[in-house]
Amino acid sequence: MLILHPEQPTSLVNQIVEGLRGLIGTQKLKADSKLPSIRAFAAAHGVSVFTVVEAYDRLVAQGLLVSRANAGFFVKRRSDDMAPGTPAAPQDDPRFDARWYLQQIFENRHLPLKPGCGWLPHDWLFEDGMRRSLRTLAAGGTDIGGYGLPFGHMALRMAIAESLSERQIVVEANQVLLTQGSSQALDLVARQLLKPGDEVLVDDPGYPNLMFMLRFLGVHIIGVPRTPTGYDLPALEALLAVHRPKAFFTQPRLQSPTCSLASMPQLVRLLQLAQEHQFALVENDIYADMDASSRPSLASLSQLRQLIYVSSFSKTISPNIRVGYVAAEPGLMEKLAQLKMVSGLTSSDITERLAFGAVTDGRWRKHLKSLRDRLAQAHASVARQLEALGFELFHEPAAGLYLWARHPDITDTAELSRLAAVEGIMLGPGQLFLVNPRPTGWLRFNVAFSGDERIWRFLERSIEERKSDLSGD
Amino acid sequence: MLILHPEQPTSLVNQIVEGLRGLIGTQKLKADSKLPSIRAFAAAHGVSVFTVVEAYDRLVAQGLLVSRANAGFFVKRRSDDMAPGTPAAPQDDPRFDARWYLQQIFENRHLPLKPGCGWLPHDWLFEDGMRRSLRTLAAGGTDIGGYGLPFGHMALRMAIAESLSERQIVVEANQVLLTQGSSQALDLVARQLLKPGDEVLVDDPGYPNLMFMLRFLGVHIIGVPRTPTGYDLPALEALLAVHRPKAFFTQPRLQSPTCSLASMPQLVRLLQLAQEHQFALVENDIYADMDASSRPSLASLSQLRQLIYVSSFSKTISPNIRVGYVAAEPGLMEKLAQLKMVSGLTSSDITERLAFGAVTDGRWRKHLKSLRDRLAQAHASVARQLEALGFELFHEPAAGLYLWARHPDITDTAELSRLAAVEGIMLGPGQLFLVNPRPTGWLRFNVAFSGDERIWRFLERSIEERKSDLSGD
Repeated sequence: MLILHPEQPTSLVNQIVEGLRGLIGTQKLKADSKLPSIRAFAAAHGVSVFTVVEAYDRLVAQGLLVSRANAGFFVKRRSDDMAPGTPAAPQDDPRFDARWYLQQIFENRHLPLKPGCGWLPHDWLFEDGMRRSLRTLAAGGTDIGGYGLPFGHMALRMAIAESLSERQIVVEANQVLLTQGSSQALDLVARQLLKPGDEVLVDDPGYPNLMFMLRFLGVHIIGVPRTPTGYDLPALEALLAVHRPKAFFTQPRLQSPTCSLASMPQLVRLLQLAQEHQFALVENDIYADMDASSRPSLASLSQLRQLIYVSSFSKTISPNIRVGYVAAEPGLMEKLAQLKMVSGLTSSDITERLAFGAVTDGRWRKHLKSLRDRLAQAHASVARQLEALGFELFHEPAAGLYLWARHPDITDTAELSRLAAVEGIMLGPGQLFLVNPRPTGWLRFNVAFSGDERIWRFLERSIEERKSDLSGD
Repeated sequence: MLILHPEQPTSLVNQIVEGLRGLIGTQKLKADSKLPSIRAFAAAHGVSVFTVVEAYDRLVAQGLLVSRANAGFFVKRRSDDMAPGTPAAPQDDPRFDARWYLQQIFENRHLPLKPGCGWLPHDWLFEDGMRRSLRTLAAGGTDIGGYGLPFGHMALRMAIAESLSERQIVVEANQVLLTQGSSQALDLVARQLLKPGDEVLVDDPGYPNLMFMLRFLGVHIIGVPRTPTGYDLPALEALLAVHRPKAFFTQPRLQSPTCSLASMPQLVRLLQLAQEHQFALVENDIYADMDASSRPSLASLSQLRQLIYVSSFSKTISPNIRVGYVAAEPGLMEKLAQLKMVSGLTSSDITERLAFGAVTDGRWRKHLKSLRDRLAQAHASVARQLEALGFELFHEPAAGLYLWARHPDITDTAELSRLAAVEGIMLGPGQLFLVNPRPTGWLRFNVAFSGDERIWRFLERSIEERKSDLSGD
């Protein structure tokens, strides 16, 4: 059906995806027609079953194929008004709901261009180290049956304690609980600390998934405005005069979406306010390894007093590995470990061993250094592109993953994102990140995914159209 | 320091553990003395760092070593009244709490003999298949960066849908949500269906972790008595006359701890009662692959109408892989997927690919068949041993993982379990599994771990002592 070229640099998966996309687009494969089974396709084209599964998987995600139970894969029938890859718009509900968010972030993840996504290109991650680690595990000699320890793989916890001590956070390995990414860590902390009706502070703009999770728990979310240099402390003090929050979930360093960094005096003042108003600080430091500076954190300044520290390897090894961790005072750690156990037993010892293999790999530190260098270069280049188009930058961090920017002629980036998706571009509309979602001109750019000229041509064209709309009115 | 024998059948890890245990026991390594670093030990003995980590890890779990931040491993100082490996008793609190449970189940997991545990010996699991799957993944060709799909790895969901259809449960792959083991599936379902103050039914005796999880959510648990042939339906009807449960979390097939199997008429009656009293059924079918019969399930009889089906690969591939799943009606699935995302983002695509590799491995079905055969043989032999000692069996299923038994001279198996732990035996005291914990003579035997003569000698001696205590009084 297709002719594949194993010698070409394009992966076989991509060749199959693009080939089938073409056949469907030109209607050589008609709606409802059945595709060969995975095994048959693999045999016919001399490729592995894994390759075909991956390709079919992507085409299902792109809305071009559908799988039917016991029957196989079929070309999806689609209504004419729906271009493939178009995300469902948030229909009646003007509020951005969890469903729309998940579609934005995950179902569009195979769009060819994704300056709005929140992860790194796979060739920026530590894939080599992961594969070496996988080979070590496959070679045998380690027991891969049985449950892991409740706190997680001991060797990795020790390695984490060691690396935290380099950041001046002194913890024992038994104060480190491994979790399924930082998301499970945040969820465990929230479930342990909060009850329905409680008030809780979050960064505004901030992390949408955290906001959905907190809302699911029935707590009231109060946004603390971010500024280019960290927190709007007068605004925070005003909020504390009328609210009694139980906790502040915050990302002082290279925050998503603004990439702003809170200064040391700001951190110290925040610790004072937490002490005075008796709320817990939950420091989400997942971008720490992207920061070349030995800058202090809330955790290093407070030594985990009334503070919970969360991080993960998603931004440096791979998000796919789903290994994160939480560190706090021993009394709280025991409760978090119990909650982890009752809500999901242990985390995967296999992925934790893989992470341990990666962070003890000889090339790990070199990988981090090179990742930071690449990000710094991408920051410079994306900032230049944005400024050339007339965008205003919230802040120019020159580190981390994001640039937060807006253009005077673009007032609703959610609308723009829908148009972009039709052209295969996943944007990061500012509305997603707001505590009280409303139309906004802000966009989050992931600098690692913003190199492609087509993104800039799309933005340029969009700005031109808006300018002429305005002048034509 | 130690002399290792790589040519011996005992693994290097065990040789190191036993060697160091000996040196500590004979005080050649004194309390507080520092051990060589992991790298130094590995270099000195020509073994891999992984091997040393594993060995130190086990010794920490056994309470013989302690790790100190930035300093390394030390021989633990222990008070004389505490034998190594002795679990902390449930002290003031006569109720068995989560902490004690976790110690019982997880911290004692390295006791040499564990007829009370809830998993399979690693050589009964599908380690070969796992390693082949790991090698495939390590070889490359698949993208292991990026997040997986919200519902989990598509190929595995398709394989699950196919295998469910063999059990007469007709589902689409998009009705299958992959989770971090069945525990996360149960947690997601409970969080989605229940709110604090709700009433919920569970099997009694039943699954302790589920009970802790439900109690954490603030719901009231009502036990439905198990009988050797399934449910005590008159008792259930009496309960339904006075309670308004939102759901019944149950394990019809090869239930833990009783291994009882509900008959088809019982399942049908249960479906009627659920319909009449408007509660959801949550069918936990994790032992399905241990059942050679093509017996119907609640899910196959109801085709997922008002029913949520949960299972996992923990009992057949490895618990360590942490891959489970939940299937239900499409509307509910979308909500569960959203909750999964907000509480932990995606599950690990890596472990899901490993599971897919395992279940599509040429030897998978042979593995399941051989597992069932081994379990049937172990059932026969353990049942004989128990009867020879005068134990009464609740039921003789000849399949599944457990035998539930009691002895007329043993009235408190929690007490017996503490004595057993001192001798390196982890028992499964009945009290752990009761909705209202109280002293009981019941014990859960994992037939796969009950072959060792030392277990039977310990039980025989304990029975003798109790008989002579009684006659001496």
